[in-house]
Amino acid sequence: MAASAGPEIERLISLLAKLPGMGPRSARRATLALLKRRDQLLTPLADALSEAAAKVRACSICGAPDTRDPCAICSDPARDAALICVVEEAGALWAMERTGSYRGRYHVLGGLLSALDGVGPEALGVAPLVQRASHRDVREVILALPATVDGQTTAHYLTDRLVQSDVSVTSLARGVPVGGELDWLDDGTIAQALRARRPA
Amino acid sequence: MAASAGPEIERLISLLAKLPGMGPRSARRATLALLKRRDQLLTPLADALSEAAAKVRACSICGAPDTRDPCAICSDPARDAALICVVEEAGALWAMERTGSYRGRYHVLGGLLSALDGVGPEALGVAPLVQRASHRDVREVILALPATVDGQTTAHYLTDRLVQSDVSVTSLARGVPVGGELDWLDDGTIAQALRARRPA
Repeated sequence: MAASAGPEIERLISLLAKLPGMGPRSARRATLALLKRRDQLLTPLADALSEAAAKVRACSICGAPDTRDPCAICSDPARDAALICVVEEAGALWAMERTGSYRGRYHVLGGLLSALDGVGPEALGVAPLVQRASHRDVREVILALPATVDGQTTAHYLTDRLVQSDVSVTSLARGVPVGGELDWLDDGTIAQALRARRPA
Repeated sequence: MAASAGPEIERLISLLAKLPGMGPRSARRATLALLKRRDQLLTPLADALSEAAAKVRACSICGAPDTRDPCAICSDPARDAALICVVEEAGALWAMERTGSYRGRYHVLGGLLSALDGVGPEALGVAPLVQRASHRDVREVILALPATVDGQTTAHYLTDRLVQSDVSVTSLARGVPVGGELDWLDDGTIAQALRARRPA
């Protein structure tokens, strides 16, 4: 690929090309940018990655990646321990946090049930979630899973499993997104928003 | 941005977002992918970046990034020292190398002349190129610069400067790209290909 650049640069390009959204061409561009900005970008990124590799672990309570264990949210007494929001990945957790409108805790599944990919309940650590939900402090489990087939399959499965715990299980509302024009929305979303209509 | 994830993860996200073609969202996705594939991706990438930061330098002859100095091409006796191909960046050098059709040497300018960005001949190291071209072994300097305004300005300037050396200065041919359909080409390319037409 870049035979003349030496094995070190080739290795860097092929590793960068494995990041989501990157390919060989963008990995070469990124490598050039890194080599051009050695002190501002290359060295700091190398350090940040080494530090993340050394320090970041999954929280033993909720599964979120953090340098502390329990993570900042699980160890924050100001966060409401009565609410557990179940998300697929830490990316969804970060998205929820950016809204600034949730003050409960989380549970990161690390994936979704998938018959196709052979992902079963054991791989997702459903048992620890059921155990957490059984704690007497917990009042509600909010399922914030994607509105996809696997997401909904997982939500149904979790609802069934959580029925034994004394908690209410809720899901994020489905409907018209903020700023959404009906003309541009898919039929499924409109139909669901119609079924779930509320007094104005 | 990801207030709950701790400063280490936030720093990693903001550094990844500075790579060309990346933004905050893709940097978060990349960070998640890195944290999920610690041993296959995170640690190797950290090591590759540290190694590049420690070892890769610009070749003192041609300016190409390499772990050796002189670089692999400049120190390869099989490469024709009579030909110097002038490129803007190492990315163009790698592209030339991928074709496998060039066996000469290179000169990496590290940029283009730009009145707008205040890049003058000194910043590009034009003097070292003129000096290299004056060596009695060198027969031809091939300008492989982009077909943009800055690229052409730089090419004209270099041609003027190299007139004093006893070398022929050539440019990559302009014309219809391989596989190019006339219908989809811009007018400038077609006009140039017409002017530069050759016997079939």
